[in-house]
Amino acid sequence: MEKDIDYENIGRYFSQMYRKGRVFYAQELKKFGLGSGQSIFLFQLYKKDGVTQEELANTLYIDKGTTARSLKTLEEQGFIKKEHIISDKRLNIICLTEKALILEEEITSILKKWDTILSNSLSCEEKSTLLKLLKKISDSNELK
Amino acid sequence: MEKDIDYENIGRYFSQMYRKGRVFYAQELKKFGLGSGQSIFLFQLYKKDGVTQEELANTLYIDKGTTARSLKTLEEQGFIKKEHIISDKRLNIICLTEKALILEEEITSILKKWDTILSNSLSCEEKSTLLKLLKKISDSNELK
Repeated sequence: MEKDIDYENIGRYFSQMYRKGRVFYAQELKKFGLGSGQSIFLFQLYKKDGVTQEELANTLYIDKGTTARSLKTLEEQGFIKKEHIISDKRLNIICLTEKALILEEEITSILKKWDTILSNSLSCEEKSTLLKLLKKISDSNELK
Repeated sequence: MEKDIDYENIGRYFSQMYRKGRVFYAQELKKFGLGSGQSIFLFQLYKKDGVTQEELANTLYIDKGTTARSLKTLEEQGFIKKEHIISDKRLNIICLTEKALILEEEITSILKKWDTILSNSLSCEEKSTLLKLLKKISDSNELK
């Protein structure tokens, strides 16, 4: 029996939309041989590559184990390569390969496609209001 | 070098908030011996237990492999038990244990705590607007 618990809260919607997004990404990324678990790292590396594994994990709020596993898969698939930092040979930085760069536009267009689906039911004004409120939440001190 | 790509979109905020929520849940759930990966299943089971593994995976938009692994951990930790369906012995349903039920209030209060943090920077009117817009997105046909 379904209990009538008031979970229709903001966090629940975020979580639901995130997971639906993952399903969407998984479908769209199949043709590139990528899983949705790797995509978030690839999307972030398209924004900024040449970063350490730790920096990437911190930026995305993803634990180190998951980050290591996902990057290993991306490396095996030829999307990223690890390079030693000259000043500190114990550290690697993650760089995109030519294969990844060639596919950049095609892969990042998936992000825009999902955003279009998300905002399809909203008017232009509603979308602008939503983005303003989301930015306000994101900028609030407790979440930094 | 960070590229100036326009990724400040709705999906990106959802994803960011979801991951920050996971970090928050992980911290709060540590004392119960639970990881944030299991919490989402437990939260859903508090809402409705006595469901099959497949139903749970579909409701949460989480793949079958992840669902199976998380439920195995929850079972080992004594939060859930699997029971055979009398009409179809091949099927199990997932039920909460007494241990889980005793901790229900304490564990579900973490959801409310996260929601309070999320909406802390918003006025009452803004929160209401945000929930209305999120509901509109969630209800839109393409996302059902």
